[in-house]
Amino acid sequence: MTAYDDLAARIGEYHDLLCALNTLKWDMRTMMPARGAASRGRQLATLTKLAKSTFVSEKTARLLDATETEIAGEDADSYRVRAVRQVRDAYDIHRRIPSELVARMAALGAQSEAAWAEAKDADDFASFKPWLKRMLGLNIELAEAIGYSDHPFDALVQQFEPGMTSARLGRIFAELKAGILPLLERIASVDAPLPLNLWDAEYDLAAQKGICLELTALIGFDYTRGRLDSAPHPFEISFTRDDVRITTRYDANYLPMSLFAALHEAGHGLYEQNIAPELTRTALTADFIGQYAVGGASFGAHEFSSRLWENQIGRSRDFWRLHFSRLQEAFPAQLAAADAELFYRAVNRVRPSLIRVEADEVTYNLHIMLRAEIEMALLEGAIAVDDLPEIWNAKMEEYLGLTPPDDRRGVLQDVHWSFGGFGNFPCYTIGNIMAAQALAAARAQMPDLAGELAAGDYQPLLNWLSDKIYRHGRAYSTDELLTRVSGEGLNTAPLLDYLENKYSDLYGLN
Amino acid sequence: MTAYDDLAARIGEYHDLLCALNTLKWDMRTMMPARGAASRGRQLATLTKLAKSTFVSEKTARLLDATETEIAGEDADSYRVRAVRQVRDAYDIHRRIPSELVARMAALGAQSEAAWAEAKDADDFASFKPWLKRMLGLNIELAEAIGYSDHPFDALVQQFEPGMTSARLGRIFAELKAGILPLLERIASVDAPLPLNLWDAEYDLAAQKGICLELTALIGFDYTRGRLDSAPHPFEISFTRDDVRITTRYDANYLPMSLFAALHEAGHGLYEQNIAPELTRTALTADFIGQYAVGGASFGAHEFSSRLWENQIGRSRDFWRLHFSRLQEAFPAQLAAADAELFYRAVNRVRPSLIRVEADEVTYNLHIMLRAEIEMALLEGAIAVDDLPEIWNAKMEEYLGLTPPDDRRGVLQDVHWSFGGFGNFPCYTIGNIMAAQALAAARAQMPDLAGELAAGDYQPLLNWLSDKIYRHGRAYSTDELLTRVSGEGLNTAPLLDYLENKYSDLYGLN
Repeated sequence: MTAYDDLAARIGEYHDLLCALNTLKWDMRTMMPARGAASRGRQLATLTKLAKSTFVSEKTARLLDATETEIAGEDADSYRVRAVRQVRDAYDIHRRIPSELVARMAALGAQSEAAWAEAKDADDFASFKPWLKRMLGLNIELAEAIGYSDHPFDALVQQFEPGMTSARLGRIFAELKAGILPLLERIASVDAPLPLNLWDAEYDLAAQKGICLELTALIGFDYTRGRLDSAPHPFEISFTRDDVRITTRYDANYLPMSLFAALHEAGHGLYEQNIAPELTRTALTADFIGQYAVGGASFGAHEFSSRLWENQIGRSRDFWRLHFSRLQEAFPAQLAAADAELFYRAVNRVRPSLIRVEADEVTYNLHIMLRAEIEMALLEGAIAVDDLPEIWNAKMEEYLGLTPPDDRRGVLQDVHWSFGGFGNFPCYTIGNIMAAQALAAARAQMPDLAGELAAGDYQPLLNWLSDKIYRHGRAYSTDELLTRVSGEGLNTAPLLDYLENKYSDLYGLN
Repeated sequence: MTAYDDLAARIGEYHDLLCALNTLKWDMRTMMPARGAASRGRQLATLTKLAKSTFVSEKTARLLDATETEIAGEDADSYRVRAVRQVRDAYDIHRRIPSELVARMAALGAQSEAAWAEAKDADDFASFKPWLKRMLGLNIELAEAIGYSDHPFDALVQQFEPGMTSARLGRIFAELKAGILPLLERIASVDAPLPLNLWDAEYDLAAQKGICLELTALIGFDYTRGRLDSAPHPFEISFTRDDVRITTRYDANYLPMSLFAALHEAGHGLYEQNIAPELTRTALTADFIGQYAVGGASFGAHEFSSRLWENQIGRSRDFWRLHFSRLQEAFPAQLAAADAELFYRAVNRVRPSLIRVEADEVTYNLHIMLRAEIEMALLEGAIAVDDLPEIWNAKMEEYLGLTPPDDRRGVLQDVHWSFGGFGNFPCYTIGNIMAAQALAAARAQMPDLAGELAAGDYQPLLNWLSDKIYRHGRAYSTDELLTRVSGEGLNTAPLLDYLENKYSDLYGLN
């Protein structure tokens, strides 16, 4: 046995524990009976502690040192070397974060999330303020522990998108705003209700599930290695590439809810299912910083795949031209008066709205920018928690021309800050940018792609994505992956082009 | 912190891991996609290894020694003292079993079980023989490691039913045979087909599930702390008393399959759900020898609860007199010509049959005795694996008057020996005996019980069982529990009385 083999065996076991944790979490969100929560919490806590002590230990440190010596001089681009580097990076971050800080964050997080849920229900920001102040304080401590040279946000975002910085995000946001805000204004000037409201009818939930299964299988989700269930907050989670669980939620009066959540989560699932088998149980299929078995390069890169299949494919005219008849078969009365074009327009209508998770493709990134900008200002002390509702509402007015009538539909709408997830929001926008960039590269490199997609043949695109991106797991960063497929790192231009083209056409703007 | 507290904290974490393992196993048998098995196997192996090293360690040994010193002189009957004794017993057994033997058994078990499945499909006992010989050899090694004074079977049965011996089982079996064989002969002489075959019709599976949910809730299974799913081999499993999962299986052409499997597993579930909350995460709600989070006193005691609710309650005339109309509502066409009495007779027909899991209440224990007697003879070397088919068939002829037409329906029918589960079978019979004995005690102590059951009020019986048996978890042995409720240990008389009374009446034997 070499040191590398010893380290790989240890990482394999750590990976098994992370997959076991994922199974407990999946069950908790889909299957667990109401009163099972307390004992499940203890099981998760014990297993998390044990997983961490398996990873952050003297033994791992010794094996890591020996392995680095052993592989010195090997091809720096190989999976082996990149896997060891991932272990080193995660190990160093974990060693820098005091375990008492982790414990304090976990303890506060659970209480704070409960306090947020109550505050949201009661539309009472004041009751949440003390919790948010403490959680912000702990996140500043965490940023100091991880370390940064420019901005505390830079330390926190590493947990979700390695290599990203607040300075770079500032430039990205400026480019996006410069493109999106004028487009939104042009759309708003011509937007009008559609001739028919498709969502006045009841859509049977079992029939919805059937369609979700069909469409996700159609784009390539492999149900011999996965399953679809329902969850109040849809998510994807995997226990290796051979067992990938996706979820959706159903609203009898709003069919798009289940369809696009299913396509979104299947997009995440396609990433996991198509990672090279030899990366299973290695550092290249787990986020060792977040202690989470997830195979994509980063949170942003994972969101690239979900947004690509949900929006660029799933909300395309081609997609519904081909598959709308299937919907009509399932819901003949409800969709009798509709056609594919109307359905396409109905699921792509652009309207500034209060709630992020309900936002269309054009306005979505504005919701993200608002949050990320507030996070950065909070972390650097430029604004105070006390002033958040006013700041939130002012930005909503500036970006979307809307003022939330209450904090429930304003600053209290998202759970993230309550459990301390500062630095996570930008990943959604990074995913949108990467999706447009990757699909533009695919179109450039695959002369037949447009025809294949128009014919409903998604396998060639899936193969291309697997070969260029998915199969590498976490071996490359978002920028590295994009450079390999498009010759350059993250670039906002393809996303802005995509939005301009799609919505100019849809709204007859030119 | 006292040594006891330290030990309890460690046991609590070990218990959490056993519950996590149970969750992975439940998922594997109910939800996991087809191709998830290989990676799940690795996750189970890693978690099992880690759980064992958490339990069998120098630290546990030190804490156990210190705790025993600390609690010396405390009430020997208290939960505290009994919990420490359980830990000591399990620890000593684990220390006696070499880990290389455990590893060899696990490795052979997986292959041997696969070989058994193939041999059964092909009706080819010869191909299974070499595996069974090796597995028998390992079980003899295991018995030597655990230690025994009289018979190797005595060592193995400790894993499932602490305190039981081959000598005592021999006496129990003799008493049962003396009662059951003549009863069976009398029944056979008058048995005739019923006027109507209820199972010629199709019974919708969703409607079957609805009835299963209703009936199990009716007897007290708490669905805020549990759920019902389907599984090819029904089972019950728990992750503390607050999360108890039961399963059943459905056959469109045989309604009793789902109904009685659901009642059986709900009977197991009622035990788990009614253990005293303060025993959660202690040695009194886990089998530390088998590394399995299960709260009943033993395998036999657990089977007592499942058989009691399935048979003594679920197959009673009172039960169907009250609930048959509910079946008729769900299946009006299929059951139009039937009535409660016919249904009662149809689900209680006694006929010698080849397959244990399909056997009625009268013949069931004969199938168990045959297996246990063969296990004992194999372990002591009185018979050879080569001769098993003949020995099996001869005993089938002797006890049931039937000769299996092939080994698939004979010696190859059960999985247990292939993975090394020698000593497990008698628990089913112990459960049947205990069920009759406990219900007889309840009837004697609760003057209103007959009326309550006749009125469909199951709560008083559930309360009595909870108070006398369930709530104690593993604190008392089968004999201790029975002595507390009936003044004597395991006694076959009430079971024989129950069978004699029920079937004399049903078949008009007197």
